[in-house]
Amino acid sequence: MTVYADTRFQNRRRRLASTLAGQRIDAMLVTHLTHVRFLSGFSGSNGAVLVKKDLTALISTDGRYTTQVGEEASDLELISARNCGSALLETLDGPRRVGYEADYVTVSELESLQKACPEGITLVPVTGVIEEIRLVKDEVSLDHLRHVARIAVVAWEELLEAGELRAGRRENEVAADLEYRMRKHGSEHTSFDTIVASGLNSAKPHHGADDTEIQDGDIVTVDFGAHLLGFNSDITRSVIVGHTTDFTKEIYDVVLRAQLAGIDAATPGTALVDVDRACRDIIDEADYGEYFVHSTGHGVGLDVHEAPYASTGGKGVLEPGMTLTIEPGIYVPGKGGVRIEDSLIIRAGAPEIITDTPKELRLV
Amino acid sequence: MTVYADTRFQNRRRRLASTLAGQRIDAMLVTHLTHVRFLSGFSGSNGAVLVKKDLTALISTDGRYTTQVGEEASDLELISARNCGSALLETLDGPRRVGYEADYVTVSELESLQKACPEGITLVPVTGVIEEIRLVKDEVSLDHLRHVARIAVVAWEELLEAGELRAGRRENEVAADLEYRMRKHGSEHTSFDTIVASGLNSAKPHHGADDTEIQDGDIVTVDFGAHLLGFNSDITRSVIVGHTTDFTKEIYDVVLRAQLAGIDAATPGTALVDVDRACRDIIDEADYGEYFVHSTGHGVGLDVHEAPYASTGGKGVLEPGMTLTIEPGIYVPGKGGVRIEDSLIIRAGAPEIITDTPKELRLV
Repeated sequence: MTVYADTRFQNRRRRLASTLAGQRIDAMLVTHLTHVRFLSGFSGSNGAVLVKKDLTALISTDGRYTTQVGEEASDLELISARNCGSALLETLDGPRRVGYEADYVTVSELESLQKACPEGITLVPVTGVIEEIRLVKDEVSLDHLRHVARIAVVAWEELLEAGELRAGRRENEVAADLEYRMRKHGSEHTSFDTIVASGLNSAKPHHGADDTEIQDGDIVTVDFGAHLLGFNSDITRSVIVGHTTDFTKEIYDVVLRAQLAGIDAATPGTALVDVDRACRDIIDEADYGEYFVHSTGHGVGLDVHEAPYASTGGKGVLEPGMTLTIEPGIYVPGKGGVRIEDSLIIRAGAPEIITDTPKELRLV
Repeated sequence: MTVYADTRFQNRRRRLASTLAGQRIDAMLVTHLTHVRFLSGFSGSNGAVLVKKDLTALISTDGRYTTQVGEEASDLELISARNCGSALLETLDGPRRVGYEADYVTVSELESLQKACPEGITLVPVTGVIEEIRLVKDEVSLDHLRHVARIAVVAWEELLEAGELRAGRRENEVAADLEYRMRKHGSEHTSFDTIVASGLNSAKPHHGADDTEIQDGDIVTVDFGAHLLGFNSDITRSVIVGHTTDFTKEIYDVVLRAQLAGIDAATPGTALVDVDRACRDIIDEADYGEYFVHSTGHGVGLDVHEAPYASTGGKGVLEPGMTLTIEPGIYVPGKGGVRIEDSLIIRAGAPEIITDTPKELRLV
């Protein structure tokens, strides 16, 4: 019987093993669940993977997931256990240097892992290696990201069409309606707590959604995303209720121009700092620089915020197959704020906007 | 001007300081956000608290939360910083032994904290101390827990009343409706991913909610909870669609009797293992013991799963003011399963059931 094994996972493990070889590491113990899924396909809530430099790999999970691991990661040898990381280490014999994920393993967990190590096994902290492999997405992952972005966009368009975002409604009612619509289109849950920030709340970049009643003249900023099969989406739109003022029109116009400049800059070979700069320059020139209090954007994938980061200190350059949000904002305390965010896939030439839905100033 | 400071937070910090004094620790650095909130009231997404043995305490968060921290934790001195834990350590001078949360701090984070330590400061791993203080809840917390449990119960009763749980609907549609109703009643988000497990899926304790269509004769197990102001609720009901069979009637009856026995056993002074035993005995006697594959219950509060644990290895005895779920289940692979769960507050005499809604066998 030929067992179909998704070669994506094997390719990722091969890249991991080859990076580790350069660091004189014989095997890598992967315990961060997002990375377990990334390297094996297994999506349960308890599990670990051990990737050896000869490219053999083992997976461990407990009895609750025996059937599921067989369906999702049939090409890996299974070690059934509750303490998955320790169980995988116990299969080894020394002398070997085994990497562990120092950015995710707690001090207490490391102590347990060390106790489980057979003689001759040395645990070595490893950071950033799997994140590096995640940077450029394969086509299957990009399709998942397009789909989960589409769920958010369709829900948003339906919400506006149904008139559910209007004066007199509460922020958390609008959030509930939007989340319900994403759920109906297949989202497993939100990718983060939905933001519906109206009026003065729109001046707080991290406002959630409370029982504030939306008023005529308000700006309402809605930042939201869906989650499906491990993948996240992220989009923000600001709309204006009833009528504009000189202030709301002006900041909307500046943020929109900044956002379009950021998208224009998001091409392969461009440094992340320059993408941030492209947005920030427009806002600075309009004298709102001090009110753009966060960075321009971030990658989106298995985490809703992941590398690369477009910020004043952003590292590296864009490559085809990376994702990036472009989300400039202006937040004037006591007056209001606007943020406009799209998620992009970097392509040769212009980026692909996977959250494509109108963003011209819109009255509701 | 008198600044009102909630004495609950001060009392908790006092208990922490007094425990630490017994361990010869001069100050405790708290970085786990649930614990930052528990000890200070601050609910932002970046923060840390330093509690000294003289009961003075400092809080750190970044510029995004300056207003919020002033509203929520006005009695603590504020150190504004991005790297909150390091910034708090930098305020100290040695020689001092400073505790850190080894169950939550990652290996990489510990390395950063160590670099930030002034000369003479020794970091000491501390585990379980704050969890111990969380075990018995104060009356304000219990009121929050009652409220968030009530949100789940009301949503469930409305769902049944509206006929939204019936043959022909998909599991994830039912989950969407239930979540929407909780949201409308004030839930900020679910306390965990809603489970709607129908037919053969009901035999998998950790099934989520997928596009399986609910069929006549199915058992449907629904496990769900709301989240508000940091507090979680947790309740499970199984219903039967259309008509019962001898099998579904039998396992429902056994699980219900086990659940009632567990509730009866949940009194102050009872060992957690004996609460588990009370449930398990009924299921064992009915010859379904091998199909009750998890423990009887857990505390519910700032985490949806927290101490105490009612299991075969459960530690300690119940005290008034603790919370506990009682959630026996029977899962027969290839046939179906039933789980019934309530959340209790332990009281002198009989426990208070905060998820009170009918649990007699119900046809939908």
